[in-house]
Amino acid sequence: MRITVRELADRVRGKVLGLASQTVDGVSSLENPKSGTVVWVDSEKNLGRALGGTAGAVILAESLTDRIPSSSKSDGMPKALILVRNPRLAFAQAVALFHPRPAICKGINPTAQIAPTVRLGANVAVGAHVVIDDGAFIGRRCEIGAGTFVGAGVTLGEECRIFPGVMLYHDVTLGARCVVHAGAVIGSDGFGFVPHEGRYEKFPQVGTVVIGDDVEIGANTTIDRGALDATRIGRGTKIDNLVQIAHNVEIGEDVVIAAQTGISGGTVIEDHCVIGGQVGMGDHARVKRGAVVGSKGGILPGKIIREGQVVWGIPAIPLDEYKVINALWRGLPKLKADVDALKAAKAPTSEPKKVRKPSSRHGSRPSGSRKR
Amino acid sequence: MRITVRELADRVRGKVLGLASQTVDGVSSLENPKSGTVVWVDSEKNLGRALGGTAGAVILAESLTDRIPSSSKSDGMPKALILVRNPRLAFAQAVALFHPRPAICKGINPTAQIAPTVRLGANVAVGAHVVIDDGAFIGRRCEIGAGTFVGAGVTLGEECRIFPGVMLYHDVTLGARCVVHAGAVIGSDGFGFVPHEGRYEKFPQVGTVVIGDDVEIGANTTIDRGALDATRIGRGTKIDNLVQIAHNVEIGEDVVIAAQTGISGGTVIEDHCVIGGQVGMGDHARVKRGAVVGSKGGILPGKIIREGQVVWGIPAIPLDEYKVINALWRGLPKLKADVDALKAAKAPTSEPKKVRKPSSRHGSRPSGSRKR
Amino acid sequence: MRITVRELADRVRGKVLGLASQTVDGVSSLENPKSGTVVWVDSEKNLGRALGGTAGAVILAESLTDRIPSSSKSDGMPKALILVRNPRLAFAQAVALFHPRPAICKGINPTAQIAPTVRLGANVAVGAHVVIDDGAFIGRRCEIGAGTFVGAGVTLGEECRIFPGVMLYHDVTLGARCVVHAGAVIGSDGFGFVPHEGRYEKFPQVGTVVIGDDVEIGANTTIDRGALDATRIGRGTKIDNLVQIAHNVEIGEDVVIAAQTGISGGTVIEDHCVIGGQVGMGDHARVKRGAVVGSKGGILPGKIIREGQVVWGIPAIPLDEYKVINALWRGLPKLKADVDALKAAKAPTSEPKKVRKPSSRHGSRPSGSRKR
Repeated sequence: MRITVRELADRVRGKVLGLASQTVDGVSSLENPKSGTVVWVDSEKNLGRALGGTAGAVILAESLTDRIPSSSKSDGMPKALILVRNPRLAFAQAVALFHPRPAICKGINPTAQIAPTVRLGANVAVGAHVVIDDGAFIGRRCEIGAGTFVGAGVTLGEECRIFPGVMLYHDVTLGARCVVHAGAVIGSDGFGFVPHEGRYEKFPQVGTVVIGDDVEIGANTTIDRGALDATRIGRGTKIDNLVQIAHNVEIGEDVVIAAQTGISGGTVIEDHCVIGGQVGMGDHARVKRGAVVGSKGGILPGKIIREGQVVWGIPAIPLDEYKVINALWRGLPKLKADVDALKAAKAPTSEPKKVRKPSSRHGSRPSGSRKR
Repeated sequence: MRITVRELADRVRGKVLGLASQTVDGVSSLENPKSGTVVWVDSEKNLGRALGGTAGAVILAESLTDRIPSSSKSDGMPKALILVRNPRLAFAQAVALFHPRPAICKGINPTAQIAPTVRLGANVAVGAHVVIDDGAFIGRRCEIGAGTFVGAGVTLGEECRIFPGVMLYHDVTLGARCVVHAGAVIGSDGFGFVPHEGRYEKFPQVGTVVIGDDVEIGANTTIDRGALDATRIGRGTKIDNLVQIAHNVEIGEDVVIAAQTGISGGTVIEDHCVIGGQVGMGDHARVKRGAVVGSKGGILPGKIIREGQVVWGIPAIPLDEYKVINALWRGLPKLKADVDALKAAKAPTSEPKKVRKPSSRHGSRPSGSRKR
Repeated sequence: MRITVRELADRVRGKVLGLASQTVDGVSSLENPKSGTVVWVDSEKNLGRALGGTAGAVILAESLTDRIPSSSKSDGMPKALILVRNPRLAFAQAVALFHPRPAICKGINPTAQIAPTVRLGANVAVGAHVVIDDGAFIGRRCEIGAGTFVGAGVTLGEECRIFPGVMLYHDVTLGARCVVHAGAVIGSDGFGFVPHEGRYEKFPQVGTVVIGDDVEIGANTTIDRGALDATRIGRGTKIDNLVQIAHNVEIGEDVVIAAQTGISGGTVIEDHCVIGGQVGMGDHARVKRGAVVGSKGGILPGKIIREGQVVWGIPAIPLDEYKVINALWRGLPKLKADVDALKAAKAPTSEPKKVRKPSSRHGSRPSGSRKR
């Protein structure tokens, strides 16, 4: 597809500076710009690079208007500029324009095993070797990729996009327009066992999972069903790859959770929180509206993170405090030396002790990489 | 199903207080009680909530008998109480009673590819698109969910429940009544490579995996085969989702391992240990009988954790010591101020230095959540 | 197979000491030696065990020659020794000799769904229920395990070994001789969203994944496609299980990454790095050639790790510094006591304060293992 910069600007609601009749036929990145394509920039730091590169057009923030060299603003310049309020959003729209989303699958593949009691909405696509069990309901225009399993009684809202190899246990519910990436498992048993005479008896996990509209779930992420009630994920929440969500967790709307984070049973994450990668949360914690948990942070069981708070570390503490403490942690050798000097000054007749090199168990190889 | 409280009490070996002829038709949680159902309580803190809620019956700990208000003990009260020694266990039994376990699949699906040399026990169920390779043995009453792969020579003890999308490499062995959740991979190659002239040559992984009876393995968990010998998991051990178990690991009986924990090659975890989530263990460590490793803890390679010890932190140290050190870590600003004051007092002519605000690289957004 | 020690030594380019005509019929480990097999040893510590054990032959390092008791060097001794420069490599070759690699599958299974436009090289094997979409190219002698999904336009170099249940999204490219373990997902959407009016809009992920020759990828590992360009993994790199590689990451050649590590978007890992398990890297970091990151280490966004540097900790710092600081961290109670003593000495009239036992929120159970 090739369109004029004017047409593109109309699509992304931008204002053109420069040659509006110039055409573009794709998008590219600032790191790897291609001629005849559009790139984007939202910081002054990268402005020169964007304007000087080989791309044919640049989507950029209105707020940078004053920073554009006057030579770039004339109609005669080879590069056209599109000024928008949110350049990342406008560029995302441009990407979608030039790269129509490929279908996960088309039609109903004859190898799919669809139980007679399944209700399929209009224009549903079902890939090869898919299994859909009794009583499931698949909303219209859903796409279900090859090899996916849809358990009995599952409900998918309309236009869900389920990639290949997803496993949906019985009775889980997804809202409209959810995206579930390959290998994700939704509705597996919560990890519940009762100690009894030195052994563990299974606590039956008979709850379910309820997921709102517009939720995206990453590859190989696991979401357990509730023990008795539901594990819940609110509308618009985005979950990255390899995340673990335990039974009875409740996640609000428009929450972002990065890869490899784990949320223990019964913990609540309220709307608009941002959770980094490899975070661990103990059970029955509560992260209140708009809070941010830094990557690798650890939230203790039962802990409450206040609304809008930014926390960091293991255990997680307010970021400002963490920065101070972390700097002091790294400054421990100096602090120790100061204390030793004070001790020596107090008792000038005794020899000051040297800082002893610790005999650490650490080798120079990371443990996990051992060859065998 | 609807039964009297008397019948329920008989099933869970409890003693009835109150209206034994009252009927219940299900279970519910204390957070979300439903009328006509049974709930459970094991702490005095929640006793009032349990007795005052809308549930029809309450399973509670014998030890709380003295704490029950006398008004709740009379035959005329609307709520019936069932006193038991272990209320969580009794309630789990009640859950199982009202929620019979749904079958993973029924019969042998005609789309399953079962090699002629496979031996199937009586009443085995095999889902759609399952593959069972040469020489596998499937014990009686096993259920094998849709799309699962059972490699050549695999042995499953009786009544195993293998959920959809499980991948069992060749020659792994599972005991009786094992439960394996969707997406788990058992028997993949251990991560073994030999550095040679700047490259890595593969060390063939020709061992296997041997899993005892009554083991439960979580969704998308990975268990590597041994390099030469076996990776072993003992009877009754329960493993959560997304756990990594490397080659030649040996895990004892009745061990619990929470989600996203990783165990490096050759490490031994003895019976009755409890391992938190996101724990990392280096290779050839040994966690002795009954030890507890707190979530996110890090065990160094070769480290030995003593019998019954509770450890915490990175690197993991005894919990009591960790608590003290963690409090002092958080108190570093105060300690630094004390040292600075002492220095100033010693050298009163020089200006005391202020605690400098560290110039941290941390932004206010967790790294993993960056949008692009 | 049974061969003489002489024949085995020729295969692994070793020199025989002892009875070269003795035969061996397999390999075994030092921990579990079997008679009539060959074991290996590369450290003096285990030499006695190797020579004294029941194995029939020992592959050992030339450098240990001086340490062999003279009684073991005579032709009349029952155990034959094979001296080599790299015993681990020689033993790996011996393992491969006695354990020919089992095929993942054979022939083209009739249940596989292969689009008419797919080009299959000579001698490709495709397992049951595999799906290969439009325009994919499968190099000669590739093996594709049961239930694997190969998206449209995927390219596999020759002799790739794709285990069952792997999900390859459209247009990803793998070089020759790659090994991909079960449940791995390659080419899933990067985690890219644009905040807009309190919600998140998807940033379409239209890049791809390009993987070099001889790369091995572990079970349930996830590798996201680039947003606009490619996520790249260089020749010879080995990636363990449950690793997360985000969009636009670039990994060099001969890199090793242990299990459960996560690499955020745009980060670069140069050739010959060694990355431990459970490491987390923020976005747009750079780990330079030959650097080593210890297990559980945390690399901040944008951070540069210098060539050959060994780093450890959260945040990661040079290992030597980490060892000193970690020892001082553990010594905080002593340091605090010293400071308190100094304060008491300065103000002898006031009572020295006791170290207060912190009131920690930690219980004695790890958070993730809570039963319910």
